[in-house]
Amino acid sequence: MNQVDVVAHPNVALVKYWGKRDELEKIPASPSLSITLGGLETRTSVTEASADTVVINGKTIADQKILQWLGWVRHQYDIPRLKIDSSNNFPTNCGFASSSSGFAAMAVGINELCRLDLNLVSLARVTRFGSASAVRSLLSGYVTMHPDTEECAPVQLVAPEYWELSVVAAVTSTEPKPTSSTSGMARTVATSPFFEKWVDSTSDDFERCKQAIHRRNFDLLAEISEANCYRMHALMMSTDPPLRYWSAGTMNAIDTIERLRHDRVPVFFTSDAGPQIKAICPPEVLPTVRRALEDTDGVLSTLESDIGNAPTLSAS
Amino acid sequence: MNQVDVVAHPNVALVKYWGKRDELEKIPASPSLSITLGGLETRTSVTEASADTVVINGKTIADQKILQWLGWVRHQYDIPRLKIDSSNNFPTNCGFASSSSGFAAMAVGINELCRLDLNLVSLARVTRFGSASAVRSLLSGYVTMHPDTEECAPVQLVAPEYWELSVVAAVTSTEPKPTSSTSGMARTVATSPFFEKWVDSTSDDFERCKQAIHRRNFDLLAEISEANCYRMHALMMSTDPPLRYWSAGTMNAIDTIERLRHDRVPVFFTSDAGPQIKAICPPEVLPTVRRALEDTDGVLSTLESDIGNAPTLSAS
Repeated sequence: MNQVDVVAHPNVALVKYWGKRDELEKIPASPSLSITLGGLETRTSVTEASADTVVINGKTIADQKILQWLGWVRHQYDIPRLKIDSSNNFPTNCGFASSSSGFAAMAVGINELCRLDLNLVSLARVTRFGSASAVRSLLSGYVTMHPDTEECAPVQLVAPEYWELSVVAAVTSTEPKPTSSTSGMARTVATSPFFEKWVDSTSDDFERCKQAIHRRNFDLLAEISEANCYRMHALMMSTDPPLRYWSAGTMNAIDTIERLRHDRVPVFFTSDAGPQIKAICPPEVLPTVRRALEDTDGVLSTLESDIGNAPTLSAS
Repeated sequence: MNQVDVVAHPNVALVKYWGKRDELEKIPASPSLSITLGGLETRTSVTEASADTVVINGKTIADQKILQWLGWVRHQYDIPRLKIDSSNNFPTNCGFASSSSGFAAMAVGINELCRLDLNLVSLARVTRFGSASAVRSLLSGYVTMHPDTEECAPVQLVAPEYWELSVVAAVTSTEPKPTSSTSGMARTVATSPFFEKWVDSTSDDFERCKQAIHRRNFDLLAEISEANCYRMHALMMSTDPPLRYWSAGTMNAIDTIERLRHDRVPVFFTSDAGPQIKAICPPEVLPTVRRALEDTDGVLSTLESDIGNAPTLSAS
């Protein structure tokens, strides 16, 4: 086996992770819950090479985050020098969680190519040292990650078929984010007066969100997810200096979603460390939601997705 | 004396008040610090009438907030039925603190017309029962209000001449705010997990802001004011359901101010319960700031102001 190809999907959290409890072991401070986005793909090939090499979307780049992570993995396990060649069918590094699918794909690919035979807990740990959010991309459907249980490995709450929902991602910018999630989180933990209360309230949201999904209660899921999203952006804005990831396009997209809901279209939004908006809705209103977002000032394009699968492998 | 005319000015807080400690006595939970905006005016005449009548910007309206307040004042003091006729030279009821100049003007006018001879503490209490922020419009220059001192009366920190600064207000909407400050604050106190920490951190900001003004340290004032403003909007967004007062125009105006500062123009922003942005800068860069804001997408118009005076009276 000379090459392993992996297809992995980013995930979007409905109950968000922002801030670590343990910087050394990269353990999040609070539990999170996400859906894996089947329609958005990262294709990654992993091969042996004479030196660690990273190619993203066709360009060789000295990505320090990935190169340092490869060094860390090599320190843990007996792996050769590797070439990583990864492409996304969605914007990279601007709030679409390309690092979640990226690190999940790399971890799965290295595990296979190097015959490490890691169990899910160990695979999650390797993934987490690249990106904690990426751990949730190791599984399909509705996925939880809890710092206090399962050694912080991902757990599938329910499969995609349990509740079919659609996601429309509204792209409002393809610029890289001004502050990386890693450094933004560290700044938040160090300076926000709200951080402790964020952790407490997110734990409450997590329990309620699991109930909403078990019951397939869309209105409750919408209420919890939007409040949690607003509270994460509030947390970011409360740091010193403040972190603002939202733009004019973001506000217009939120206005559109509020207007749709006012017109009785079942839809809610979430948004991560970037100006993009992800709208979640039942499949039957997806065309309506997509059209409304495409007609929104400041929305450059939209992507659509269902709730998707775990990474898939092929070797050659 | 049949009629008293008052000119009063709104104020804009650099360290914000959001949320009451005591709903009965209308006492804010935290100290605040504002500048009185000389260029924005409310002109109010108070006359005896056969029934309480409120005319705002030329229209007779059944403004329950004002009518209930008049009833409360009558319950405290021996005052006749009154006609209030008030006009603003700036947008009303959408985040420009028209209630601050309005209630300050009415309190001062009633005190004069009815010869109540109230001292500042009593005048502040009467004003506070209309709007707590309005208390700061009773004085000129840089004004503080602290729940634990001076019976919550306003205190002039320094006069306008101590440090001449200019304000450019960017109007991004003239729609009334979706949620009034009074009910937004009550919702915040009842539901935000961040409220207690907001109160603590605002008390810190208050002390630091006083120092920045005493030292005329613009960069420090900018840093404290913007962080406090972001934290208030964060607090609002953390309520259940979330309160969002910012719009696309707001984000564009903030982008403009960040760009100006990047180009070494000394300027910072603040924003209250509405989508408007107020830019604060030294007088010499006012034309630059005003032009940049007028060229900003979503900014409908701008108003300019210096740091102004206490209400002025004339009787006829």
